[in-house]
Amino acid sequence: MANPTAAMLVIGDEILSGRTRDANMHHLAHCLSGRGIDLREVRIVGDTEEAIVTALNALRTAHDHVFTSGGIGPTHDDITAECVATAFGVPLDIREDARAILATNYPGGEADLTPARLRMARIPEGGTLIENPVSKAPGFRIGNVWVMAGVPVIFAAMLDAVLGELEAGTALLSESVRIERGESDVADALGRIAAAHPDVSIGSYPFQRDGRFGTDIVLRAPARAPLDAATNAVRALVG
Amino acid sequence: MANPTAAMLVIGDEILSGRTRDANMHHLAHCLSGRGIDLREVRIVGDTEEAIVTALNALRTAHDHVFTSGGIGPTHDDITAECVATAFGVPLDIREDARAILATNYPGGEADLTPARLRMARIPEGGTLIENPVSKAPGFRIGNVWVMAGVPVIFAAMLDAVLGELEAGTALLSESVRIERGESDVADALGRIAAAHPDVSIGSYPFQRDGRFGTDIVLRAPARAPLDAATNAVRALVG
Repeated sequence: MANPTAAMLVIGDEILSGRTRDANMHHLAHCLSGRGIDLREVRIVGDTEEAIVTALNALRTAHDHVFTSGGIGPTHDDITAECVATAFGVPLDIREDARAILATNYPGGEADLTPARLRMARIPEGGTLIENPVSKAPGFRIGNVWVMAGVPVIFAAMLDAVLGELEAGTALLSESVRIERGESDVADALGRIAAAHPDVSIGSYPFQRDGRFGTDIVLRAPARAPLDAATNAVRALVG
Repeated sequence: MANPTAAMLVIGDEILSGRTRDANMHHLAHCLSGRGIDLREVRIVGDTEEAIVTALNALRTAHDHVFTSGGIGPTHDDITAECVATAFGVPLDIREDARAILATNYPGGEADLTPARLRMARIPEGGTLIENPVSKAPGFRIGNVWVMAGVPVIFAAMLDAVLGELEAGTALLSESVRIERGESDVADALGRIAAAHPDVSIGSYPFQRDGRFGTDIVLRAPARAPLDAATNAVRALVG
C-alpha cells in the first residue's frame, strides 16, 4: 500500500523577509521520513488571509495530512486560526476547554486572560486540541490539518504529541556512499545503475568542502535486498 | 509604486526527506529584502516532473520573478532544465555557448564532455545564461524565471551575478525592540499601536532562551517618520 502523503504550510512574514530562518520544516521532514509518511510539498506564505487560505485549501485537498506552523499566538499579526476557519467554512469561537487549559499558564488563572490571550483559546468548530506542554496555548486539528506553533521548541513538542496518532507507512531503508570526486565523474555510470534498479531511489548530492568537490550518493528503498544490490553497484564505482 | 514581487521554487527530494537542510531560501530572502523586492511565496517540491511544472507555472504567472534552486547538475535525478522547458512549452537542446563555457572546467576541454556533463549545457530555447564562477556549469533565465544551482556556494554566486539586473523596489526601513516578557503581556497594547500606525508593519516574534520567554518586536516601514513614531510607541511599552 502506498505511504500516506503530507504537506507543510509555514506561515510568517519573518521567514519571507529573511529575518528568521525556519527550523520547523527540516524537523518535520525528518520525523515524517522516520514514520513512513511522504512529505511531498512545503509552502511558505506571509501573514495575509488570502495567501494562507488559498495555500491551505490547495494542500489539504491534495495530501493526506497538512501540518502548519506559525500564527497562533496572541498578537494582531497571528491570523492562522481565523484563516483555517475560513478555509473550512466553519465558525471560530473561544472554546471552554482551550480557555481552561490556557488559564493554567498564568498566576491569576482566568483573571489573567486578557483579550489578546483569549485569542489563543479560539478553535474552529469541529477542531480537536493539540497539547502544548511548553506554554499551554493549544494547537488544534481540524479534518486533515494539524495547526501548530511557530516557535521551534513548541512546534517540536506539539509534533511529538501528534506523531503517534498518524497512521505509519513504510519507512524507507537508506544507504549512503561518499565519493571524493565531482558528481559529473560518476554521473553516466550512476544513471545506468539507477535505470537497472528502478525500485531504488538514487540521489546524487554534490558538496564542496575545503575547496574540493565530492558527492554523496544516497540510496533509498523499502526493502533490504534491492537496496543492497544497488548500493554494491555504487560502491564498485568508488573502486 | 508597488515593489516587484518574487517567489522561490526549491527543488529536491533531499530537502523533503529531511536529509538536507535548505540554506538558499534564507539567503535569497535576505538579498531580496535588501533590494526592495517582496518575496511572497516559497514552494519546496521533489524531483518529479509534474510537481515541478505545476508549481513553476503557478508561481511564474503570479509573481514578477521566480527563482529556482536545485536540479541542474549532471545526474539522472537532475530534471529541472527539462521541466522548465516543458513549463514554457519550448525545446531543450545543448547550446554551443553553454557547451564552450562548460568545456573550460575540465582539463581535456571538449574531449571531457561526457554525455552526463553535456546535460548541463542544455538550455531551454530563448533562455539566457547565468554565470557560475564556481564550477562553470551555467544557470539560465527564461522569461521571469531564474534557474540556479542547489549547492549553496554556487546558488549564492549565481544570485550575486543576477541581483544587479533586477529592478529594485523600496527596501523597508526596520527597527527592532526586544521585550523580556512573553508576547501575551504586550499583545493588547501592541494591537492598538498597530491599528494606530497602519503604514507600519509590526511583527511580534516570541522566543525562548534559558527557560525564559521574550519577544522581539520588529517594525518595518518605507519611510523614517512613521517608523520612528511607531517604534517610540513600542519602546514606551517596555518603559
